[in-house]
Amino acid sequence: MPVTLAENSYGKQAIRLVTVRRHAGRHELKDVTVAIRFEGDFAAAYTDGDNQGVLPTDTMKNTVYALAAEHPFDNVEDFGLALTDHFLSHSPRAASVRVELTDHLWEPIPVGNAPHPHAFRQAGSERRIAEVTRDRQSARVRAGIEDLVVMKTAKSAFEGFPRDRYTTLKETADRILATAVRATWRYSRPYVAFGPLWHEVRRVLLETFANHDSRSVQHTLYAMGEAVLETLDVEEVHLVMPNRHHLPVDLTPFGMENRNEIFVAAAEPYGLIEGTVRRG
Amino acid sequence: MPVTLAENSYGKQAIRLVTVRRHAGRHELKDVTVAIRFEGDFAAAYTDGDNQGVLPTDTMKNTVYALAAEHPFDNVEDFGLALTDHFLSHSPRAASVRVELTDHLWEPIPVGNAPHPHAFRQAGSERRIAEVTRDRQSARVRAGIEDLVVMKTAKSAFEGFPRDRYTTLKETADRILATAVRATWRYSRPYVAFGPLWHEVRRVLLETFANHDSRSVQHTLYAMGEAVLETLDVEEVHLVMPNRHHLPVDLTPFGMENRNEIFVAAAEPYGLIEGTVRRG
Amino acid sequence: MPVTLAENSYGKQAIRLVTVRRHAGRHELKDVTVAIRFEGDFAAAYTDGDNQGVLPTDTMKNTVYALAAEHPFDNVEDFGLALTDHFLSHSPRAASVRVELTDHLWEPIPVGNAPHPHAFRQAGSERRIAEVTRDRQSARVRAGIEDLVVMKTAKSAFEGFPRDRYTTLKETADRILATAVRATWRYSRPYVAFGPLWHEVRRVLLETFANHDSRSVQHTLYAMGEAVLETLDVEEVHLVMPNRHHLPVDLTPFGMENRNEIFVAAAEPYGLIEGTVRRG
Amino acid sequence: MPVTLAENSYGKQAIRLVTVRRHAGRHELKDVTVAIRFEGDFAAAYTDGDNQGVLPTDTMKNTVYALAAEHPFDNVEDFGLALTDHFLSHSPRAASVRVELTDHLWEPIPVGNAPHPHAFRQAGSERRIAEVTRDRQSARVRAGIEDLVVMKTAKSAFEGFPRDRYTTLKETADRILATAVRATWRYSRPYVAFGPLWHEVRRVLLETFANHDSRSVQHTLYAMGEAVLETLDVEEVHLVMPNRHHLPVDLTPFGMENRNEIFVAAAEPYGLIEGTVRRG
Repeated sequence: MPVTLAENSYGKQAIRLVTVRRHAGRHELKDVTVAIRFEGDFAAAYTDGDNQGVLPTDTMKNTVYALAAEHPFDNVEDFGLALTDHFLSHSPRAASVRVELTDHLWEPIPVGNAPHPHAFRQAGSERRIAEVTRDRQSARVRAGIEDLVVMKTAKSAFEGFPRDRYTTLKETADRILATAVRATWRYSRPYVAFGPLWHEVRRVLLETFANHDSRSVQHTLYAMGEAVLETLDVEEVHLVMPNRHHLPVDLTPFGMENRNEIFVAAAEPYGLIEGTVRRG
Repeated sequence: MPVTLAENSYGKQAIRLVTVRRHAGRHELKDVTVAIRFEGDFAAAYTDGDNQGVLPTDTMKNTVYALAAEHPFDNVEDFGLALTDHFLSHSPRAASVRVELTDHLWEPIPVGNAPHPHAFRQAGSERRIAEVTRDRQSARVRAGIEDLVVMKTAKSAFEGFPRDRYTTLKETADRILATAVRATWRYSRPYVAFGPLWHEVRRVLLETFANHDSRSVQHTLYAMGEAVLETLDVEEVHLVMPNRHHLPVDLTPFGMENRNEIFVAAAEPYGLIEGTVRRG
Repeated sequence: MPVTLAENSYGKQAIRLVTVRRHAGRHELKDVTVAIRFEGDFAAAYTDGDNQGVLPTDTMKNTVYALAAEHPFDNVEDFGLALTDHFLSHSPRAASVRVELTDHLWEPIPVGNAPHPHAFRQAGSERRIAEVTRDRQSARVRAGIEDLVVMKTAKSAFEGFPRDRYTTLKETADRILATAVRATWRYSRPYVAFGPLWHEVRRVLLETFANHDSRSVQHTLYAMGEAVLETLDVEEVHLVMPNRHHLPVDLTPFGMENRNEIFVAAAEPYGLIEGTVRRG
Repeated sequence: MPVTLAENSYGKQAIRLVTVRRHAGRHELKDVTVAIRFEGDFAAAYTDGDNQGVLPTDTMKNTVYALAAEHPFDNVEDFGLALTDHFLSHSPRAASVRVELTDHLWEPIPVGNAPHPHAFRQAGSERRIAEVTRDRQSARVRAGIEDLVVMKTAKSAFEGFPRDRYTTLKETADRILATAVRATWRYSRPYVAFGPLWHEVRRVLLETFANHDSRSVQHTLYAMGEAVLETLDVEEVHLVMPNRHHLPVDLTPFGMENRNEIFVAAAEPYGLIEGTVRRG
């Protein structure tokens, strides 16, 4: 039986772009990692070594820098739309182009009571992300956030679960819940005010996490997605929330009692909870 | 419009299992990382905080250790089949269970001219992997390998590609090709001799990489998949091959010539090439 | 010639401790990684396998949890002092004990305009650190900070350096300066208000970095250390500042000009600048 | 009181060099990471921003590539000697130069029964390392190995240790001993056959680890160092051996017995044992 090429794609990963726009009295800093993937009519490159249609991934990299120079952007979503538009227009063999953008967030260093005009610190581990996928018909944008590391030390329980022969976990009405949220979402309209809305989604995710009376990671994940959909112009949210376990230390061998105060933060293993919350 | 839960899953990641089987004159060592994911009728946990059907991920972890004790295994594929069978049988709410296994490869330390009976060294960065997915109808097994780091210093070219305004890459008939292969494949029959066949696939991948007259990463990727399908009982191979660029250093500023001998190994950015080769 | 044991040490690394103190209306969260090292009269363990004096590293770990329960602490420096005091008192063979503490910084999630009482987010990549070393005479404390990631987009130059046959770097009066500061310091007195002073040192480091008219990383490093010593009760500061290069992209092949706006953030290689600034 | 600069150093890290020497019928591949550090009369750069004596770290990087082209090397020790000689000769302000080299080990892919002439695989996680430090008087060379990951499943005990109030560890006559050895050593003479001797040291370390009847990590560490000194022209060995704990799983809650066969490989915390073994 013959052998054929099925799905395939190629592109460039980890393109590191930093731009500085020098306004009077204030510099604007963007620090973005870009990944690009082409799909389309590239079978001849695989089967015959024919590179006629294969735009070099080195050119993809160059294009990121050139377009950043020609089209300064406020939001990574806008830059992703510009990049996918360029690539599809200039690459006849490409049927679709996907661009993933990671926005490393910096904030001005406060000096005195004011933000410094051209000195910055990295604000945290969290990063703003965007995914733009464009084919010959349309473009789709997902916005998101990753490594939003949060913990709550009250209003988190895990009870009423089934037990089998291998279950040793104790029920608990008061445990630590810690996670690194990865959330991506689709707005209700293709073009929105990407910047302000992103901050609104982030705020709702954080506030819901903080206030929720949690019966499980699943329960809080759903509440976070639901709150976003109920208050903002968002159509669908996908959430990934690892359960970073914090285990109470047994102090009884030392003649002491642990009043739910002393924990081991366990790196491995960890739970992994995923879910998509959507309208309709 | 109401809000609903769409796709969802949960499970345990990074379960670290080491087993020692103590044969006379020789110990057998297994070192495996296991990840487990359940999908099924778990919506009530998300929407209502109802944990009645939610087998704890802590129980999943315990089950890995208990089953490893009861069912010593030679191949991670076999262990994945046993685990998914157990979980589906004992978890009525689960519609499907997926287990991913990473086999950290150890080999006996050679002492004198013989393998030592109970001392081992980690053989390399490469790892054997397997993915077993089981639903109420059937089980599917994928075998694989990851982080198989290889380089060739001859018979690698990249020429004849299209050029646009942003293309600066030079054509080259003689470049370094370096990659970390990730390959997963599906055998032609559900149950095969998982151990010997895995070694055969690995050998064919390596030999084809070494011998191929490469016109691009895509070209070599396809040749590797094709060779596996043409010689072994494999139905389909998926290959992911990052292009770890090695850039010739320009020595002319120092009054020297680089005769294709001196390179920078560049960490970022890197190309990423994927493809699936299949019968029919 | 005989063979002997020279310097030696042993201990436990990566002990992960999380404590929650449950005040009315507010939880206090500490998240600390502890490393412990003993030096002393342990040669018999090495040379003869005699474990009589070898307090197990597992016991060191247990002690961290037990002491955290008995002696709630406000500052990692205080906890390091308590731990070293305990270990030296209870381990006759130990001549000195060194404890390194990494304080993973969390801050309350703001909800409405107020900090939430029991929900937290990880504030940034930076971490507060402390090193306490105690022998039979005295204890020494170093405070510090690591992974304080900062960047300035103005007032940074590198000019007037020597050139040799292999020098291709261009002089620049206006470059990006980016680094991840690691600073450790010794206070002028053994016991100070560790918490408030740490925040003061951090503020002076950040403000000096921001305001400095930099001629090199060395120049800014010294200015940062000098400012700390001139304004605070600190005796000596050691600073490590990698130079995370941001290289202007050459856009001329695309018929464009780079007005010092478009940069590659290069991961490798990087400069590494170290220095100790001290009184006297 | 005035403020002064004490110890200081600067240099370049993570210089990535790959060289290919194209012999007839066989390519020779070197893949080395180089780090360079200068110490000397550089205070004016720190205190005054005077760069007159500061050879750019970018030039250090260029020099690595240029010297690799001019002086092909068989051993990283030789390359470190050439680099430090060059830097001291050309940098009047430098009092000493230290070069650290990491040799990423590749081996030919076997095809048929022969090593392929120009295709390679990364042999393992272990790396050969060297440190060369040169001042105006002399050069010192340390050779070494790192990330040599080994495990033994027999002949490892830990008994007879002291117990205090916080000790819960059980004595064991038969445990798993796993570690990632980092060893560096100084040869008895300045110039030796660096390549063959390195392989001999590695062999002795591995064989001693395998054969040793271990009462502790300390005990095995010393035996390994002692064996190197007793059989080879080595003056001193420094060994760092983390204790990667493998904990027997308690299967009794499941009505099962663990006959020392089922273990958790624990990532955190871990023991850390260090020691220097020397002649005389």
